Amino acid sequence: MGRRTAPPPISWLMQTALSRPQLISLAAGFTDNATLPVEISRKLLSRVLRSPRTGRPALQYGITAGETNLRRLTAQHLQKLDLGVTPYRRHKNQGQRHAAPPTHLSDRVMITGGSQQLLYMTLEALCDEGDIVLVEDPTYFVFLSILQSRGLRARSVRLERDGLDLAHLETILQRLKKSGELRRLKALYLISYFQNPTGVTTSFEKKRGVLKLLKKFERAAGHLIYLLEDAAYRELSFSGRADLPASQDARQRVPAIPPSALMVPGAAERVIYTGTYSKPYAPGVRVGFGLLPEPLFTAVQRIKGNHDFGTANLLQQLLASALETGLYDRHVAKIEKRYGQKALVMKRALAKHFPPNVEIWEAGGGLYFWARLPKNVPTGVKSKIFQTALKNDVLYVPGELCYADDPARKKPDHEMRISFGSASEKNIREGIKRLGLVLRKLL
Amino acid sequence: MGRRTAPPPISWLMQTALSRPQLISLAAGFTDNATLPVEISRKLLSRVLRSPRTGRPALQYGITAGETNLRRLTAQHLQKLDLGVTPYRRHKNQGQRHAAPPTHLSDRVMITGGSQQLLYMTLEALCDEGDIVLVEDPTYFVFLSILQSRGLRARSVRLERDGLDLAHLETILQRLKKSGELRRLKALYLISYFQNPTGVTTSFEKKRGVLKLLKKFERAAGHLIYLLEDAAYRELSFSGRADLPASQDARQRVPAIPPSALMVPGAAERVIYTGTYSKPYAPGVRVGFGLLPEPLFTAVQRIKGNHDFGTANLLQQLLASALETGLYDRHVAKIEKRYGQKALVMKRALAKHFPPNVEIWEAGGGLYFWARLPKNVPTGVKSKIFQTALKNDVLYVPGELCYADDPARKKPDHEMRISFGSASEKNIREGIKRLGLVLRKLL
Repeated sequence: MGRRTAPPPISWLMQTALSRPQLISLAAGFTDNATLPVEISRKLLSRVLRSPRTGRPALQYGITAGETNLRRLTAQHLQKLDLGVTPYRRHKNQGQRHAAPPTHLSDRVMITGGSQQLLYMTLEALCDEGDIVLVEDPTYFVFLSILQSRGLRARSVRLERDGLDLAHLETILQRLKKSGELRRLKALYLISYFQNPTGVTTSFEKKRGVLKLLKKFERAAGHLIYLLEDAAYRELSFSGRADLPASQDARQRVPAIPPSALMVPGAAERVIYTGTYSKPYAPGVRVGFGLLPEPLFTAVQRIKGNHDFGTANLLQQLLASALETGLYDRHVAKIEKRYGQKALVMKRALAKHFPPNVEIWEAGGGLYFWARLPKNVPTGVKSKIFQTALKNDVLYVPGELCYADDPARKKPDHEMRISFGSASEKNIREGIKRLGLVLRKLL
Repeated sequence: MGRRTAPPPISWLMQTALSRPQLISLAAGFTDNATLPVEISRKLLSRVLRSPRTGRPALQYGITAGETNLRRLTAQHLQKLDLGVTPYRRHKNQGQRHAAPPTHLSDRVMITGGSQQLLYMTLEALCDEGDIVLVEDPTYFVFLSILQSRGLRARSVRLERDGLDLAHLETILQRLKKSGELRRLKALYLISYFQNPTGVTTSFEKKRGVLKLLKKFERAAGHLIYLLEDAAYRELSFSGRADLPASQDARQRVPAIPPSALMVPGAAERVIYTGTYSKPYAPGVRVGFGLLPEPLFTAVQRIKGNHDFGTANLLQQLLASALETGLYDRHVAKIEKRYGQKALVMKRALAKHFPPNVEIWEAGGGLYFWARLPKNVPTGVKSKIFQTALKNDVLYVPGELCYADDPARKKPDHEMRISFGSASEKNIREGIKRLGLVLRKLL
């Protein structure tokens, strides 16, 4: 099966970046090197390994679904994220914000090697070869690579600035019903916060709408149609916070980003939620998590048993310690500010250097801006723009890589994903300047 | 696909063990808690995170195939294991024992989340549903679980005290050729050192013989038939070393265990070697590795990119540091001694408490003894022996769990895997005593 796995386009981009040190990469989804929690991690690991309660367990085998304490903390963490925002905290859950979640919530929490591994295993559990998964148009290219390697088909749903085009989603569902393919549809994949690549955040109303539509077609499908919510960038949120004084408490600075789809009634059965500690804390620690409906949880747990018996306990104990001590929250507050600042630098550079006929989708979080050129101007790997940019030592991710193969539409190829994640402020300015010059010359 | 993944028998055993604290588990493949390198790891992690060379890289994304330094050290480590033993070091490679391996060797090294993940991904890369993999009879039950979940078929090759029965292997290959199924045969899976569950170590002559036979049938198969050598227990070798003084250098104490199949001419193309740092160092660090032939390396690398982009860099830097400082070797020497001692305790207890009509396969390494009861005495989960043992608070792994479903023979069910890995010396004595009483009563 795996032999059909195509070479991922991103590895070529990464190799190009690594082999040319003078190149400014605005392509990588790497996080900011300067803010990595090196000293915090050293202290936490020392704490974990000095403690008789955690020292040996950190180095021993554990439970396939994850370390009990981290699963409990993760359930609390999720609940805090969801209940710490409107519209829920104002009414019935008021006062319960920090209450321990009911036991059954952490029972459905799975700890994995990044959320990537959870996405992979979920598709393994849900889909047979030839099955269909709905994706945003555009979407995360590694997810497309998983679909390709597993022989699954993607159908693309138009993306608007506040999430999926619900009318288009309904049309696609109707079409699948008509063609008899609805029984092959297993899930809709949604990157709900600061989407990769567009930066779009799906509104809560749209999440509700999506679930309602999926539910409506379940009878015709003959099974549940899952909403696979990928919230990888949820905690990298910084809209308007770059200029806030550092002294303000981290929680107060959380803007009103929408709750997860877990807050929609009926979600416990239909929503697979995946999140990660990697992006907000440290990619080298590589711990993700998910909340899965039963019986999918059990199926994925078995698959995880076959993959690796469970994620390394040392990493899990580190994260548990970071969460327990509050150092995790403090670190996230710090990097939110940092990314906010870098996004502001990129925004100003784009305003200064990019031609006015390039439409910029500004991110309120995450790692990416999305630049849309006039429709007749290709940006792909073989395009004049990409090649000229490369000659001028600046790299971006061509938009076309983020679009699924979908017979229903021509693949757009006039966009760019531009990341402010790993480049320094200086390199962001210089990179955007170089890219702007290329665009002004060729547009 | 994964939906067909059956519940792993081992999880039931583990749950049983965890839920009854008074139970002595001789079932778990856990390593010894008392020898976990807690203090060593704390120091090494502090070193890694204090160093400007490794601190930030340890927390950042890395390369899918693994951290360059660890891949290089792993290639050296492998070479040291193979060239540090007869018959090779006496002649042409003499004097080159510690020379850096040629570049191409580390280029084919892959770092994974335990060797388990590598086994999984290798099967993904090699096999389509319905394909056949040859296994030892008996074999590692989690491997059987992977085969089952991926819709693959196992064919079992008889196991002798020094490895596979080559005549039986040839018969099976002939039979597959005759039935036209040889084209579905992709690999032979061999746990070459202190096998799980029997403790058998495959002789070098048998490795040579296996490769010769596989090669002989390649033309009829229409493709290479790989030898998948799982060397997970290779470094847990202690034959006769329990009584050696601790002051002796670790390397001198290495007994003459056979070289890996990598040393057979032609192996570079046909041998997939998997090993692990987890068992000898710490399962909670969960880092495995493999040496793969091209183009399989590339295929597995792509799959790894889809699974998780690469194993957590923090763990990789920790292991690299352990290898570089020599603390890894020192730790392995220490636990070899410890396991040797525990195996000796088990051996004496077995001699004292088990009835004489139980045949014991004594391990010279690894974690397990293999006990063979008279053929008409079942030991399975529902058997009188297992249930009585459970009532008397002692747990073992029933042999039947380690046998593949193979229509060519009735599944043996009269054996036990007994582990001295995690139990204390006191509990080994007490556990074997309890088990002996049960056997004496029921045999």
